[in-house]
Amino acid sequence: MSRETGARIVVPVALEGRGYDIHIGRHQLCEAAALIAAFAPGARAALVTDESVAALHGAAFETCLQQEGIAATRITIPPGEASKSYAQFVALCDALLAAKIERNDLVIAFGGGVVGDLTGFAAAVLRRGVRLIQVPTTLLSQVDSSVGGKTGINSPHGKNLIGAFHQPALVIADTALLDTLSEREFKAGYAEVVKYGLIDDPAFFDWCEANWSRVIAGGPERDHAVAVSCRAKAAIVARDEREEGDRALLNLGHTFAHALERLTGYDSRRLVHGEAVAIGLALAFRFSQRLELCSGQDAGRVARHLDHVGLPSRLQQVPGGAGSAEEILAAMAQDKKVKRGALTFILARGIGKSFIAPGVAAEEVKGFLEAELAANGAAH
Amino acid sequence: MSRETGARIVVPVALEGRGYDIHIGRHQLCEAAALIAAFAPGARAALVTDESVAALHGAAFETCLQQEGIAATRITIPPGEASKSYAQFVALCDALLAAKIERNDLVIAFGGGVVGDLTGFAAAVLRRGVRLIQVPTTLLSQVDSSVGGKTGINSPHGKNLIGAFHQPALVIADTALLDTLSEREFKAGYAEVVKYGLIDDPAFFDWCEANWSRVIAGGPERDHAVAVSCRAKAAIVARDEREEGDRALLNLGHTFAHALERLTGYDSRRLVHGEAVAIGLALAFRFSQRLELCSGQDAGRVARHLDHVGLPSRLQQVPGGAGSAEEILAAMAQDKKVKRGALTFILARGIGKSFIAPGVAAEEVKGFLEAELAANGAAH
Repeated sequence: MSRETGARIVVPVALEGRGYDIHIGRHQLCEAAALIAAFAPGARAALVTDESVAALHGAAFETCLQQEGIAATRITIPPGEASKSYAQFVALCDALLAAKIERNDLVIAFGGGVVGDLTGFAAAVLRRGVRLIQVPTTLLSQVDSSVGGKTGINSPHGKNLIGAFHQPALVIADTALLDTLSEREFKAGYAEVVKYGLIDDPAFFDWCEANWSRVIAGGPERDHAVAVSCRAKAAIVARDEREEGDRALLNLGHTFAHALERLTGYDSRRLVHGEAVAIGLALAFRFSQRLELCSGQDAGRVARHLDHVGLPSRLQQVPGGAGSAEEILAAMAQDKKVKRGALTFILARGIGKSFIAPGVAAEEVKGFLEAELAANGAAH
Repeated sequence: MSRETGARIVVPVALEGRGYDIHIGRHQLCEAAALIAAFAPGARAALVTDESVAALHGAAFETCLQQEGIAATRITIPPGEASKSYAQFVALCDALLAAKIERNDLVIAFGGGVVGDLTGFAAAVLRRGVRLIQVPTTLLSQVDSSVGGKTGINSPHGKNLIGAFHQPALVIADTALLDTLSEREFKAGYAEVVKYGLIDDPAFFDWCEANWSRVIAGGPERDHAVAVSCRAKAAIVARDEREEGDRALLNLGHTFAHALERLTGYDSRRLVHGEAVAIGLALAFRFSQRLELCSGQDAGRVARHLDHVGLPSRLQQVPGGAGSAEEILAAMAQDKKVKRGALTFILARGIGKSFIAPGVAAEEVKGFLEAELAANGAAH
């Protein structure tokens, strides 16, 4: 069980022989350094970050690390999804080798999902694996990508196609760092928070409806939302680390989302991941409704909550348009085998009642998308 | 226990949940295809090989695979160590993705150590891990690199610095394929065979002294030598998959060898890995003798056996020269932390009595190398 008493929340991830803790709380940068020093006293480390995070928090964190006796070499990558590339991977590996990082040293990923995914992958394969510490700086990475060990980069063939399962040795989520996020980026991360309620925790979805504005404002509700999300993810990862079963539930909304990201050319000016997930969540519930699995009331609640928060919930809200039903379907199938015209989806029998549906007919999906596009902005 | 009854020898590698078999025997290419088909009926596969192996055996193996109902896409890389590069890794990953290889498909590495190391690494990280089958075509890869799950590529900072532990699902060593190796390449692989006797199996070293010419000639002795080597490696890997202890014994001779390869610029015209290992084995024993750990008689036997086989055993035999004692020491230390002037070596108290020696003073090594270089070709 995790503790949630006052200033700091500790969520353990129970993995045989490779378990680790997620520390959640405000103003932890120097505490983070102390935790790292307690974990590996006097360690040599590489601090990998991007230019944006470096400008805001780089010097502060380095000072904390220095005070704790951690000698860290800073390695900075350009911000943005384009850094999850082969070229940045090669450059980062060689930078870590130039910094003489060996098997008992530390690699600290200090940034959002891009920094965490790229750095985690480099740490996974450097000398066949060195210890990784995640210090996520965005809501998205605090509640999702920094936990669970999925690391990777993109290929011209698709996102996250090259990577490794490499569990961090420690995750430190300083929720005060989120104060510097843009509203748009914060809300995008919030879509993943809502997802945990929708997967299997209807009471948390109720809580989100009542408390979302306080999560954004940054009170103890924010820490609570991060902690509940991490606990939910930790529980699923502990059951199914390598996504051979249950872990696929975390993809709720993501089959639609990935297609939309692909169709908008991964252009963050048009659509960021969390926005695509928000639309994907609403679509997953309306698709479940169409398949007569889920009530229209529940599907409506999901979309309404996203609307209240200021997140998109319909294909029509994709700037520049999402494409035709055929294009969206093709984008969904592009990097996956379509077995006899069937796709695997995460569907729901209601809020908090999601499940893996392996045999959804492509024709059903196409009909649904056509109906969605024809609805032409009609209210839910 | 492995079976060694007649035509085919099966050596199991006992790894909890990820155990696999090594099949050893002559004329197995169509048997290999049958084993693969039995393992994954009707699988989609990528057959990764190099231009040399493709020219000799590619069509034959593909015909066998086809007959067994395995649809394989051939991917060919240039031969030679230079292919263990970032560039070839990226090209191979994208070729595997273009071939639509997914998590339940197969990647078959059909070649020597370079093909196996590069392909194994790509399989380890493609979609965070797909199944790998090793069909090694050189003695070196049959007795060493195809077994145990170490995969990787080189960086400008050094060899095998980027990689993963990714155990194959099946290894098939067709010893008839070794008939097409050059004598030089065969003998180089033989250095790794001898190594297993020197590590902890003095009776096998006796056997090697008596039977080496028949191993080269290709009788049942060859299959036996491959089987004993695989069994020895399998036992060590089962005890210590990730080289946190015992597995380091497999590096007997390799600290010297890697330095010599580095100093000869990884130029296979000057020195191939197995030749460097041969010199390294002789040096490890003479160094152990100098440290009064091992008798001069045993050190002499090691060098004499290598001489008989036609393998080098002295620094003076490095074409173009090995460099000075300082240069060799620097090359040994280059990609490893030297802790307070001490290096980790594998030393020996006699033939079959090797052990890990973590605190060898760099000064001791330097003195030994100076003495070796000064010996100026004197007989052992």
